[in-house]
Amino acid sequence: MKTRRHPFTLCLLAALACAALPPASQAADPLPSWNDGTPKQTILQFVAKVTKEGSPDLVRPAERIAVFDNDGTLWAEQPMYFQFLFMLDRVKAIAPEHPEWKDEEPFASLLKGDVKAALAGGESALGKLFVATHAGMTSQEFEKIATDWIATAKHPKTGRLYTEMVYQPMLELLAYLRANGFKTFIVSGGGIEFMRPWSERVYGVPPEQVIGSSIKTKFDLRDGQPALVRLPDINFVDDGPGKPVGIQMHIGRRPIAAFGNSDGDLQMLQWTAAGPGPRLCLYVHHTDAEREWAYDRTSRIGRLEKGLDEAKAKGWTVVDMKADWKRVFAFENNGGE
Amino acid sequence: MKTRRHPFTLCLLAALACAALPPASQAADPLPSWNDGTPKQTILQFVAKVTKEGSPDLVRPAERIAVFDNDGTLWAEQPMYFQFLFMLDRVKAIAPEHPEWKDEEPFASLLKGDVKAALAGGESALGKLFVATHAGMTSQEFEKIATDWIATAKHPKTGRLYTEMVYQPMLELLAYLRANGFKTFIVSGGGIEFMRPWSERVYGVPPEQVIGSSIKTKFDLRDGQPALVRLPDINFVDDGPGKPVGIQMHIGRRPIAAFGNSDGDLQMLQWTAAGPGPRLCLYVHHTDAEREWAYDRTSRIGRLEKGLDEAKAKGWTVVDMKADWKRVFAFENNGGE
Repeated sequence: MKTRRHPFTLCLLAALACAALPPASQAADPLPSWNDGTPKQTILQFVAKVTKEGSPDLVRPAERIAVFDNDGTLWAEQPMYFQFLFMLDRVKAIAPEHPEWKDEEPFASLLKGDVKAALAGGESALGKLFVATHAGMTSQEFEKIATDWIATAKHPKTGRLYTEMVYQPMLELLAYLRANGFKTFIVSGGGIEFMRPWSERVYGVPPEQVIGSSIKTKFDLRDGQPALVRLPDINFVDDGPGKPVGIQMHIGRRPIAAFGNSDGDLQMLQWTAAGPGPRLCLYVHHTDAEREWAYDRTSRIGRLEKGLDEAKAKGWTVVDMKADWKRVFAFENNGGE
Repeated sequence: MKTRRHPFTLCLLAALACAALPPASQAADPLPSWNDGTPKQTILQFVAKVTKEGSPDLVRPAERIAVFDNDGTLWAEQPMYFQFLFMLDRVKAIAPEHPEWKDEEPFASLLKGDVKAALAGGESALGKLFVATHAGMTSQEFEKIATDWIATAKHPKTGRLYTEMVYQPMLELLAYLRANGFKTFIVSGGGIEFMRPWSERVYGVPPEQVIGSSIKTKFDLRDGQPALVRLPDINFVDDGPGKPVGIQMHIGRRPIAAFGNSDGDLQMLQWTAAGPGPRLCLYVHHTDAEREWAYDRTSRIGRLEKGLDEAKAKGWTVVDMKADWKRVFAFENNGGE
């Protein structure tokens, strides 16, 4: 017997069906944006191994330290490092306070919109831009500047907030590791105080677990009020061989898992790999020109050359973003995902 | 009617009575080694205030940051900073590898047992001793050296392990704050890598929550094996105005509670006090020549002069060790406590 359902009943059934999705087996997947494949299996097996009670490979929670590079590993880094784009925006924002910049390089070119001419001065030009935008204020003032920028500035290609340009599979990985007793740290070449204002909200990583490059600061009493003043001198460069140094300085323990995407992460992965017991060393390989960007051995930003060779030689995990990630960004319309 | 109880019954009753001790009111005291008085009441009221749901003074757990100086605040510092005694022990231990020290100051005097003559060379002499004992090895090697020393070396006056020379009331305070959602950090002028090997076991503070003075380190591949090598250069002095700098560098948040004992902690307390909302700033004042040591304004070690004046002026809490602490060290025989 055929019955004709009332439209309301159909809506109700549809709603119930949607509410029931995804089925239990999928809901239990801690890494739903990862396709099944070697990287996902390697991650799941590693976590199972180090958390299994009674196993000789068990690592106690206090020693479950996982370190993540930021640029190109947790969020995108093209067409330029986002902190560089922040710097350019800041030069424009404070130019009215600096009429002298009209005739002073690299500011003059930059204010005319000619980034290439501005950067013709090389490291010296870059240094001037950096100091003008990152030093000379208190830590509190800089925190507000970074917070305001990240809340409003848009990516030049996608038009998205920069905090939307984070990789959904990596957010899932961060959460999955923490759910298994790991303490997650960011170890980035980027500025430590540039990342801290939003790392907790976006990545679930509190400021005390952010390690990065820094400039010197000085404690000062201003009219009896204590202040930390940002000075125009480099304190620490948290890149390449600096990463294991930064890890030891801030954490004081060797990580058991490390995640990066460029040659600047190589020493961090080497340092992690060289400890005893199970280790997870993983490179994110940018192979998806359609959903993100494709670059490696010859890129000026995020070059991955030595790291790719060493990963192959040592059997580290390499994520092929195109093949291994079901979704790159949360904002993607991804075929019903 | 009188009944005679069987001895077994008496034992059972005694056991039950003992099991029931201490009475509920005492068992609930989170700070049993503190006498009732202003410091204890101030601590209890502060914690109650910042943890009370719905209160305008509520501080969310992520921002419940408490910082502790180490020397003179968590463990003793007389007759000399314990790390200095470590240094002297190390000179003796490695002297056989350095026959040239027989004719070289400050080593020669030190090896003859004349500390005063050795230190006549001032900062230069101290620097030579420091470099000889703290640099030139890997971080892992230094960790083992510090671990071995702390496990065996004895305090010259009490004959106790140095890790027994920690203040029982402060251990209770650390645990009490953590039980109330605080994250506890050590912020010490002492060496960061000297404290980390035992801070977790003794204080419950993991290495990533230890901030201290440091020397530079360098990442190196030795026969293909990654190593962090300790260099003979000062990296950071975590004392006085360096303490707020170290706090910002490592934590990136302003503490809401700070504990110190000397003028070297003053800027840390100022920095903590200057934030909004409830604050707890506390000085431990060494007033007990019998159970510990009594010193303040004129002491070469742990001088407390400006800090004592500022504490009075600003209404910070000052602990009178003699009056406010029921017990100083756990090993004391303290009248049935």
